[in-house]
Amino acid sequence: MAHPPRIQAVAFDAFGTLFDVYSVGLLAEQLYPGKGAALAELWRNKQIEYSFIRSLSGRYKPFWEITQDGLRFAAARLGLELDAHRCTQLMNQYACLSPFPENLGALRSLKAAGVPTAILSNGTPDMLAVAVKSAGMGGLFDHVLSVDAVHQYKTAPAAYGLGPAAFGCPAERILFVTSNCWDAAGASWYGYTTFWINRAGQPREELDFTPSATGQTMDEVVDFITRSRHK
Amino acid sequence: MAHPPRIQAVAFDAFGTLFDVYSVGLLAEQLYPGKGAALAELWRNKQIEYSFIRSLSGRYKPFWEITQDGLRFAAARLGLELDAHRCTQLMNQYACLSPFPENLGALRSLKAAGVPTAILSNGTPDMLAVAVKSAGMGGLFDHVLSVDAVHQYKTAPAAYGLGPAAFGCPAERILFVTSNCWDAAGASWYGYTTFWINRAGQPREELDFTPSATGQTMDEVVDFITRSRHK
Repeated sequence: MAHPPRIQAVAFDAFGTLFDVYSVGLLAEQLYPGKGAALAELWRNKQIEYSFIRSLSGRYKPFWEITQDGLRFAAARLGLELDAHRCTQLMNQYACLSPFPENLGALRSLKAAGVPTAILSNGTPDMLAVAVKSAGMGGLFDHVLSVDAVHQYKTAPAAYGLGPAAFGCPAERILFVTSNCWDAAGASWYGYTTFWINRAGQPREELDFTPSATGQTMDEVVDFITRSRHK
Repeated sequence: MAHPPRIQAVAFDAFGTLFDVYSVGLLAEQLYPGKGAALAELWRNKQIEYSFIRSLSGRYKPFWEITQDGLRFAAARLGLELDAHRCTQLMNQYACLSPFPENLGALRSLKAAGVPTAILSNGTPDMLAVAVKSAGMGGLFDHVLSVDAVHQYKTAPAAYGLGPAAFGCPAERILFVTSNCWDAAGASWYGYTTFWINRAGQPREELDFTPSATGQTMDEVVDFITRSRHK
């Protein structure tokens, strides 16, 4: 976007954006040597697919539960035995993810600059509370918004509507930050100014949209906001 | 289901159920040796993912176009050069899929038995007309129903509503037949009696549902209907 609107607040996606889901793959590889990457990828894909299908059909179920459903399917599909102990280990790992290395510093910079911040996530309030604490991000967000409040997952408009409602400003004045390109599409369609953190250099999803900005790390998000606020 | 209702009509999913999408993989392998299976799988996954995302966000775009969008993303993601000629070749292959070997005989059996039949598909009316003709299935369906009429993809209830509206009977009296387990979930939630053709012996999706019946070929669908109608 050549002239993005002045940004008044920032809303972050959580899983994959603030919290690095890669550590799940490491544990999966320990539990299932040679299959960890495949399990982690299919698990993630199924978790997201189930969120779409359930929202489309009006069959909401909390994200913690569909995360476990996705794990169960992925293990079965790959022929991996998922006993109760391994299931608990993997789910616990998902509950306590590490932040990406630069994220804490970036969030502290925004806090110091007085930029209002939020998490806007598919995760349940409990999942988000544990993840924020586990990542050392306590006190860095003004709002922790879960789609559980509306029982609809992203990319449903009701889910994205939580941001403007919490900040009390139009979506275009909020920078929605996500590493998930489909999430950037949904947020752009809703009306947010969007930043896609494309850490892995992926092609853009073919969804007829362009994020307002793209970068590779959270530090570039801070730069974007700083520039926007000093225009 | 121990006592399914008496079946009055049958609605078939099209792609993957009536029409074998495997031939696309064969062409893909010719064009991109060693990468054909990966391209076909990611293409299919993206096509479906885009249908979910667009329906959730109220951003309908015809299935032919999102099929091409999915192909473009899949090729880019896998680092495969998709020039206009190869794109056309692959899309043309998708337009003229072969039926699974037993399907024509099964459909003729249903026709001979006087069972009303429909296609209920995400495909556009044009795609379905070409596919039906190409597969030699002309005259075998009473209704060819495209979600294009409601601009919402499965698993949106509006999409499944086309079946009862066309047949003039409740969903539970219609057997919805699909090879896509997520489609069987959506149809079951909507109220159809459902038959999941599980050709590849896949695990069931973890979506808290049980199809009314499961089998490996279309012939088992005919048996199920015959038994239902002679109770």
